[in-house]
Amino acid sequence: MHIQEFQNLMKHLYFKRDNERGIEGTFKWLVDEVLELGEELKGSDREATEKEFADVIAWLASLANIMSIDLERAALNKYNYKCPKCQKSPCQCTF
Amino acid sequence: MHIQEFQNLMKHLYFKRDNERGIEGTFKWLVDEVLELGEELKGSDREATEKEFADVIAWLASLANIMSIDLERAALNKYNYKCPKCQKSPCQCTF
Repeated sequence: MHIQEFQNLMKHLYFKRDNERGIEGTFKWLVDEVLELGEELKGSDREATEKEFADVIAWLASLANIMSIDLERAALNKYNYKCPKCQKSPCQCTF
Repeated sequence: MHIQEFQNLMKHLYFKRDNERGIEGTFKWLVDEVLELGEELKGSDREATEKEFADVIAWLASLANIMSIDLERAALNKYNYKCPKCQKSPCQCTF
């Protein structure tokens, strides 16, 4: 599934509530989901970890929806088949 | 671009360094990028905000790579065209 299609799926499922909650509230949810992912990473429950990865990309897409930002376009504009810093593929940054 | 293709692009560009850095260090980078996104959301620089969205999905993909987790499959397993909580599309959760 394209990143854009997944973002549209999140829009279909959740836009009304996401938009009512607003940017700040939705960002806080994203942060909470990232922290939950961090907790799962310490354990060994692979299925639970996968679900937390799913939640993080879902909330990132929700946040992009209420900002009217195209997540796929944003990702490819910055990571256009090369490292945005060294312009090489693969990255050859020395820092 | 499919979520999986983007994850593979991140693997091509960054896997060696991501893998050397490890799960904990890469998770910390993800958290930092999320916080940077939060700062940009307070401002009005749309291009900078889009770049921060790009960075968050990029670091999420990097983390998934070193965990050998397929981010697209994880996302679609949980958000399979309906809300995973109420099983409706669109979501009709009442909380």
